[in-house]
Amino acid sequence: MDGNTSIWSSDNYDPESIKLCVKKLKEEFGQQFSDSQSILEQHTHTMTIHESELPNGVVFVETKEDVQKVVNICNEYKCPIIPFGVGSSFEGHLNAPFGGISIDMNNMDKILKVYQDDLLVVVQPGVTREQLNKYLRYTGLFFPIDPGANASIGGMTATRASGTNAVRYGTMKDNVIALEVVTPDGQIIKTANKARKSSAGYDLTRLMVGSEGTLGITTEITLKLYGIPEVIAGGRVSFPSVKDATDAVIMTIQAGIPVARIEFMDIAQVKAVNDYSKTNLPEAPLLLVEFHGSQSSVDEQSELFGEISSDFGGKDFEWTSNNEDRNKLWKARHDAYWSCRAVRPEAELYSTDVCVPISKLSDCITETIEDMEQNELIGPIVSHAGDGNFHVALLIDKNNKMELDKLDEFLVRISERAIKMHGTCTGEHGVGQGKRKYMLKELGNAVNVMKKIKEAFDPHKIMNPGKLFL
Amino acid sequence: MDGNTSIWSSDNYDPESIKLCVKKLKEEFGQQFSDSQSILEQHTHTMTIHESELPNGVVFVETKEDVQKVVNICNEYKCPIIPFGVGSSFEGHLNAPFGGISIDMNNMDKILKVYQDDLLVVVQPGVTREQLNKYLRYTGLFFPIDPGANASIGGMTATRASGTNAVRYGTMKDNVIALEVVTPDGQIIKTANKARKSSAGYDLTRLMVGSEGTLGITTEITLKLYGIPEVIAGGRVSFPSVKDATDAVIMTIQAGIPVARIEFMDIAQVKAVNDYSKTNLPEAPLLLVEFHGSQSSVDEQSELFGEISSDFGGKDFEWTSNNEDRNKLWKARHDAYWSCRAVRPEAELYSTDVCVPISKLSDCITETIEDMEQNELIGPIVSHAGDGNFHVALLIDKNNKMELDKLDEFLVRISERAIKMHGTCTGEHGVGQGKRKYMLKELGNAVNVMKKIKEAFDPHKIMNPGKLFL
Repeated sequence: MDGNTSIWSSDNYDPESIKLCVKKLKEEFGQQFSDSQSILEQHTHTMTIHESELPNGVVFVETKEDVQKVVNICNEYKCPIIPFGVGSSFEGHLNAPFGGISIDMNNMDKILKVYQDDLLVVVQPGVTREQLNKYLRYTGLFFPIDPGANASIGGMTATRASGTNAVRYGTMKDNVIALEVVTPDGQIIKTANKARKSSAGYDLTRLMVGSEGTLGITTEITLKLYGIPEVIAGGRVSFPSVKDATDAVIMTIQAGIPVARIEFMDIAQVKAVNDYSKTNLPEAPLLLVEFHGSQSSVDEQSELFGEISSDFGGKDFEWTSNNEDRNKLWKARHDAYWSCRAVRPEAELYSTDVCVPISKLSDCITETIEDMEQNELIGPIVSHAGDGNFHVALLIDKNNKMELDKLDEFLVRISERAIKMHGTCTGEHGVGQGKRKYMLKELGNAVNVMKKIKEAFDPHKIMNPGKLFL
Repeated sequence: MDGNTSIWSSDNYDPESIKLCVKKLKEEFGQQFSDSQSILEQHTHTMTIHESELPNGVVFVETKEDVQKVVNICNEYKCPIIPFGVGSSFEGHLNAPFGGISIDMNNMDKILKVYQDDLLVVVQPGVTREQLNKYLRYTGLFFPIDPGANASIGGMTATRASGTNAVRYGTMKDNVIALEVVTPDGQIIKTANKARKSSAGYDLTRLMVGSEGTLGITTEITLKLYGIPEVIAGGRVSFPSVKDATDAVIMTIQAGIPVARIEFMDIAQVKAVNDYSKTNLPEAPLLLVEFHGSQSSVDEQSELFGEISSDFGGKDFEWTSNNEDRNKLWKARHDAYWSCRAVRPEAELYSTDVCVPISKLSDCITETIEDMEQNELIGPIVSHAGDGNFHVALLIDKNNKMELDKLDEFLVRISERAIKMHGTCTGEHGVGQGKRKYMLKELGNAVNVMKKIKEAFDPHKIMNPGKLFL
């Protein structure tokens, strides 16, 4: 198999058969089925500039048996299935390029069991992260992964999501203990038991995490939980240059400071925040940090970080373990998204992300800023700097063909830049449709191995076709 | 496919063809090939009571191209290949039940590059963990995973090894960033780039980690490194009961104390140590702890742990951050293996491990001790208690059929006990030949999915056949 040869083809799907499948699902699911135009549009309207490609129908599943039934019927008619959570994907994961059925998981939103002593929780995929943490409030435990959006746990699992505190708590790959999955042939499997570790066979849990709905549909997720930290301290400090800021990050990690969040903002992002939030932050690269632990531990971490940042020219490091003051210090980060939008209110915001070894973060960000300047693109940058991951929030007029072309070319360059620096074209957004074309450049013939896995799991290619690789 | 139907069969392999393959390899590899009886025996003499099943020849590879050549030749003759590291496997991973070639990785022992700023190192699979840490000495960095034996990094990757400090630093699945692998069809792939996280496609890295040489042969491994802690404190405390000890462990984790090691010993193990090391430890369940951090942080962690252990009846908690004194406190743990052997010097030591949710650890250990008492088996217990993982070091007279039968029955019961408690039949030793029969009970029809993956990767089943599942 050649990595360049697409396994996706409209020849795999017969429109007449898909129509029959839709008819059958309508009969079987009644009120749980819809093919109204607005519902179809809702199910591909995602936070992306990829054009919507509508499914032929939507099934609102309520149980794993519903999921199994949809899969079995779709299998019979070789009809594509696209799992849908809250629709916060950036990369066109939810489109239906070959038609088919969107399977809406939002009604599978039960928190099934908290195992307090084991620091585990079992949830259905439609549970959102905010819902989960609200539910856990009185247990003293929390689920740390925070990709920004109030995403569904199923969607976060499918895209291997992470976010601001991955530097301390890891990504979804580190926090999913086990999954229950309906496989493309309609079987229900569990990928692991509830032990914290196991060496019993292939790691199907990790294979499913990040598989973007192409290998099966998750119906139950067992997650790790953590004790809510006794004290949370937050801080903020400006640096003379991008390099100084990232050097401070590298030193912080090397020194073993267990920083919970360490977020970078470039000058454009700081300016955007100043304008939007009426603040007076120095117009310079900014780091925002958060420390979790006991009072004396966060005091020590904050002081150590203060010393390190000062070694790299960090100015006026402010920090506090008072919640209200901490929120004020972190306001710049909380307002990042809306402040970007306000830079160019008429534009669409297209967010892309790459991730590089941390030693290359400064180069990658600096070259990307220069690239945007040269090409007259506006894209404030926020970075989960401890992981070497950064986002560019490009503000694009969708109706301006030239801008769209410039965006396309920029996206190729930033991905190739990250790959050249031994990084990845996507740190946490997933591949979907948007990043497929970089997979071969990033991973070479390993993509063929992925295709083999796909074909072994799903010979009729009914699960979310057209995603993840060409 | 039925989970009970074995995919392994001697019909897949033609002894005549294997002979021709051996001849060809001998010609191609000259001095790097051996089929002397003693070399063949060495390559299946592992730390296990499984009977040796010899390969037909051993190739000592030196480069990835050598590996590729062996795989291509073995493919041509449909000849099994069994990767060999230092031979510290417990579960018969290195046996050649269908004959074939042992591929000895020990000469691929180069540490290729340390990325100081990125806290990464790239090594060949024959590098051992002690060799790696010795090499890293002057960098201020270390590689934490410590399965006890001076295992090869390749072997640790293949079995998803962990050990005493997995509670803080994770297992091999958490610390392998990327792999270079020769696939069963002779291609060289890399599973990921060097970014700390990525959501670019299927997680081939994690699929390979723990695949026990059945999906390919690792030729390069990129590992995470950590800053050597400024201070290491160690402590020791005895408890009235197993339950009190494990409750103290649960509370320690829930309190968010970032304990680096938290090891449990049952009374039999403590007695064994007292006898062997001439110590006077109370004959009671024992916890040994280790804390990493700054002086004030380890002081705080130690004090907090002292309070928690005292809440659960812990007596005479001693701790120190002086290296020499810490080694004295931890002597019981360091002497565990040899003290077990001394309990019954004429016996073989057969080590088995299971892992359960931490809330079940006390029950699982207690029932296992009662089981051994009822069946007159001797097996001191050591547990990586923070993970819910424990080892029984069974002392067995190999020449006594009745004892061997009792051992076999015990191994079934302990595995089934762990699985019933939502745990796993193997926390860190892997499946190999020894635990294959429990896979279906533990993972049900997920085993079929594993078999599908195996067949997609390796249709001729040349890679380490007869391991991992029936």
